Amino acid sequence: MGSEVVNGRGSGHKKGDKSPAVRLVPLGGLGEVGKNMMVIEYGEDIVIVDAGLMFPEAEMLGVDLVIPDTGYLHDKLDRIRALIITHGHEDHIGGLPYLLPLLGFPPIYATKLTRGLIEVKLKERHLLGQAVLNTITPDDHLDLGAFGIEFFRVNHSIPDAVGVIIRTPLGIVVHTGDYKFDYTPVDGLPADFGTLARIGKEGVLALMGDSTRAESPGYTPSERVINDTFDKLFANAPGRIIVATFASLISRVQQVVDTAVRYDRRVALVGRTMISNTQMAMELGYLKIPEGTLVRPEDMFFYEPQQIAIVCTGSQGEPTSALTRMANGDHRIVRVQPGDTIILSATPVPGNEKLVGRTINNLLRQGAEVYYPGIAPVHVSGHGSQEELKLMMNLLRPRFLVPVHGEMRQLVAHAKLGKALGIPEDHIVIAEDGDIIEVRPERIQKVDHYPSGNVFVDGLGVGEIGSIVMRDRQVLAQDGILMAILMVDKETGQPIAGPDIISRGFIYMRDADELIELARTHVLESFGMHSRNGHTADWTYVKAKIKDTLGDFLYEKTKRRPMILPVVMEV
Amino acid sequence: MGSEVVNGRGSGHKKGDKSPAVRLVPLGGLGEVGKNMMVIEYGEDIVIVDAGLMFPEAEMLGVDLVIPDTGYLHDKLDRIRALIITHGHEDHIGGLPYLLPLLGFPPIYATKLTRGLIEVKLKERHLLGQAVLNTITPDDHLDLGAFGIEFFRVNHSIPDAVGVIIRTPLGIVVHTGDYKFDYTPVDGLPADFGTLARIGKEGVLALMGDSTRAESPGYTPSERVINDTFDKLFANAPGRIIVATFASLISRVQQVVDTAVRYDRRVALVGRTMISNTQMAMELGYLKIPEGTLVRPEDMFFYEPQQIAIVCTGSQGEPTSALTRMANGDHRIVRVQPGDTIILSATPVPGNEKLVGRTINNLLRQGAEVYYPGIAPVHVSGHGSQEELKLMMNLLRPRFLVPVHGEMRQLVAHAKLGKALGIPEDHIVIAEDGDIIEVRPERIQKVDHYPSGNVFVDGLGVGEIGSIVMRDRQVLAQDGILMAILMVDKETGQPIAGPDIISRGFIYMRDADELIELARTHVLESFGMHSRNGHTADWTYVKAKIKDTLGDFLYEKTKRRPMILPVVMEV
Repeated sequence: MGSEVVNGRGSGHKKGDKSPAVRLVPLGGLGEVGKNMMVIEYGEDIVIVDAGLMFPEAEMLGVDLVIPDTGYLHDKLDRIRALIITHGHEDHIGGLPYLLPLLGFPPIYATKLTRGLIEVKLKERHLLGQAVLNTITPDDHLDLGAFGIEFFRVNHSIPDAVGVIIRTPLGIVVHTGDYKFDYTPVDGLPADFGTLARIGKEGVLALMGDSTRAESPGYTPSERVINDTFDKLFANAPGRIIVATFASLISRVQQVVDTAVRYDRRVALVGRTMISNTQMAMELGYLKIPEGTLVRPEDMFFYEPQQIAIVCTGSQGEPTSALTRMANGDHRIVRVQPGDTIILSATPVPGNEKLVGRTINNLLRQGAEVYYPGIAPVHVSGHGSQEELKLMMNLLRPRFLVPVHGEMRQLVAHAKLGKALGIPEDHIVIAEDGDIIEVRPERIQKVDHYPSGNVFVDGLGVGEIGSIVMRDRQVLAQDGILMAILMVDKETGQPIAGPDIISRGFIYMRDADELIELARTHVLESFGMHSRNGHTADWTYVKAKIKDTLGDFLYEKTKRRPMILPVVMEV
Repeated sequence: MGSEVVNGRGSGHKKGDKSPAVRLVPLGGLGEVGKNMMVIEYGEDIVIVDAGLMFPEAEMLGVDLVIPDTGYLHDKLDRIRALIITHGHEDHIGGLPYLLPLLGFPPIYATKLTRGLIEVKLKERHLLGQAVLNTITPDDHLDLGAFGIEFFRVNHSIPDAVGVIIRTPLGIVVHTGDYKFDYTPVDGLPADFGTLARIGKEGVLALMGDSTRAESPGYTPSERVINDTFDKLFANAPGRIIVATFASLISRVQQVVDTAVRYDRRVALVGRTMISNTQMAMELGYLKIPEGTLVRPEDMFFYEPQQIAIVCTGSQGEPTSALTRMANGDHRIVRVQPGDTIILSATPVPGNEKLVGRTINNLLRQGAEVYYPGIAPVHVSGHGSQEELKLMMNLLRPRFLVPVHGEMRQLVAHAKLGKALGIPEDHIVIAEDGDIIEVRPERIQKVDHYPSGNVFVDGLGVGEIGSIVMRDRQVLAQDGILMAILMVDKETGQPIAGPDIISRGFIYMRDADELIELARTHVLESFGMHSRNGHTADWTYVKAKIKDTLGDFLYEKTKRRPMILPVVMEV
């Protein structure tokens, strides 16, 4: 069994040794924020923790979603024993609809709420029939090939989140999932210190720990902190209250509902995912809303403004979300008005700062009072800060540390915390997606790298938006496109019509007559110079020449570099 | 004179009254961060404060710079008495090369360093000969038409910054410029409390105050705070120290130099603007570098790493800057190596967070120690926080308040501070670019709005990138372009060649043979259906139909919406 591990595809050719090892292969979430996915291998057995998605960065033009590249697994499908999902956030479950078919529908294990959120997602893509879903509780034990699996409850910004304990023949490996320690969580269920301490005492070989907030000193405040703010704002609001937050942040919705009930307000839910998520959370018992509290958005107008609280999506400034529509004055039902108190109960995800800022500005323009993180304590993170990361390491006392979930800066910050707690430098591995890490009782090391890039989802296409298409979009986005279409006689090779010059996104054509006329002359001259030998002309060569000449000419005149597309048609 | 004010173009037709008023017309920097420009009018006289630029937002594709729209002034050029520049930052001087010709080269007034920075800028664009530059000191008085102008020194993240006192026949109007109060500034020159208190006692009609950090509670720390951090880092760095900061942040460069001298390190300046700015600051006496301290970057290698400190540009992650090149491993001279200590002594400007984060990650990948705001106190803002804004208002005790320099959120926060200090709500005007504000002794009000948008600079073009070109670029950036080129017989109207389908940025063509073939069929069918009447066909109509049919087909197959460009050529 051991030799298979070492000789498998993409394995430790470089410096792996022959003794059996546990392999950790991150396919997402290391060196980036999002699309979390970790492969844990021993011998013939593989378990995977999470299968998330990532939202595209600004330069990934036109891309809808990014998912992990699972190429590393494609010749090992029969060895996958389980896909364990730690919690129901998009960056942990969002890749499933795309990846399950590629991975041969391995059995999924998840807690009740997480499973519910996965089912919603799979139903949308008509995959629910094929998926194998198992509900677990934090107290369950699973035997999956060489692995024994246990769980421990953690606090996070969604209920029913767990960390994973993976017993291997070489020792215990722990994956925390996303976590913080909240001693007074809204759902009353604190993290499972008992199990953590017990496992720590037993001895942990390797810890894969959430690094998201490894740069933040101190402790992340309890969700309860929000209650005081809500109380104050609800007590003083002269009109409606509109709270925008993540649709998955069930505990925050619960806090709004509880406060609304205390101040005798009805609650309206606005936004597609807000409605579907809260519905499911209510059905599964994770969200408790007293009879008569909910009103349909259409029925809000039967109440006075000060009897209404709205909970909606759009805390990230997403262009089509409820709050953004309200901010732009084009929401179907809710028009923002002076007297409205609007609370953005969420922090912008890195990269969303501008969008969120714009939403805030537009809401202010309409005369609303707006509260957001930075000017009022209306949000706390779901991730533990430095002291919590230290607490986790103190509880588990791992021999080896592998920081997960973060860009390099967060992974490095987490590693520094580990060092400060006495974990030797060579017991800590800072790895990125595709790195293959081998863990043995005496040593941890990166042995190889599987080139694991981003897989882009664009419309119906998964993975086929490659670097060529993306580069073209970037050129088009910068300076547009200019086409020169020329018809030539098939026999003589002489131009018989054109060149027609068409451009988009380059220059305002109506004001550019002279430029276009000159461009036309340049095309004809270049054509004449390089196609002397009539119908035997090499059109590829001629087109390249036209492109160069025209490109230089346009750059000189405008200092812009549009994409140039010469088209020669033979008649 | 009064009637001219009221009846001028774009003036108070709506609710202005006939008595003379001071007019404030922000052309940039209100409702946004950047391109600051304020017009102050009384009767026949106009003074302008600042003429900045703004860097484009993500959706301003391909745009190099954004400058204020000065259309409001174009029929009032003979009334412009002065262009007063408060300090030498890009968002206050960067618009000059583009706007001076449009404004008829009005006389510029600026302090020595500010003037130096303006000259560098104008020289690059060969405008220095035409510009009229006057050097002022903070103690100067100017008489400009109806206005008497005085200045007061402020602290900011560049030396020689001033605020402006404008005496009008109706009272004193103050423009703070950018400011903070630093009791221990690096250059030893604190803000001019004396003048502020004197003017406050005399009575201030209206205050235009910097709102940049109106959301931040407390005081902005003194620049001196940085010294302690630098001391600690320089004392412990095992190898080179590389400090990236704004090229205009002369005091920060001074701090690096001072610390380097204390720890016996030579200083190398890297980055074009860093070199030109520091040179000029040295010549004008704003930067003091002891003989023998500076080394050329090429000569660094004659010293041990621990004898070297590098000051460079790139603190904003700008793609072609020195630090970004180092982070990407393609800087001409400096290769980052383990043992290097790198300090990002600047905060990301909103919108640059991702770029800066990427630079940090890449530097960490190369094994350097990296310090940046959030994990170490390596930067302080140049703008005052809430307590400083309150101090300014307490010193000046203005009757009316116009928050300037900020997005809506900052302007609103500044207004709230004013209210908290007892300025009545109707004495505060929250205005945005193009609003026309009239100030009279008894009243302040927005009377009109001049539609003042962004002027885009793209390559050599100023202003001609309009909404059509920009929208095209956005469509192209999302899903690319697809052209269908069809040749038809001029006589019969029948297709004789094509359709040729060409696409860029839409789909990887080599894998899309079937799709392209089907698209071709759709074009021909649509053509056949809508061009029945031979050579009398209305090609505009036919092309629109082809576009619709093809668009629907492609969306159904790919869920993408490329720009579709049908081209029909008659032969």
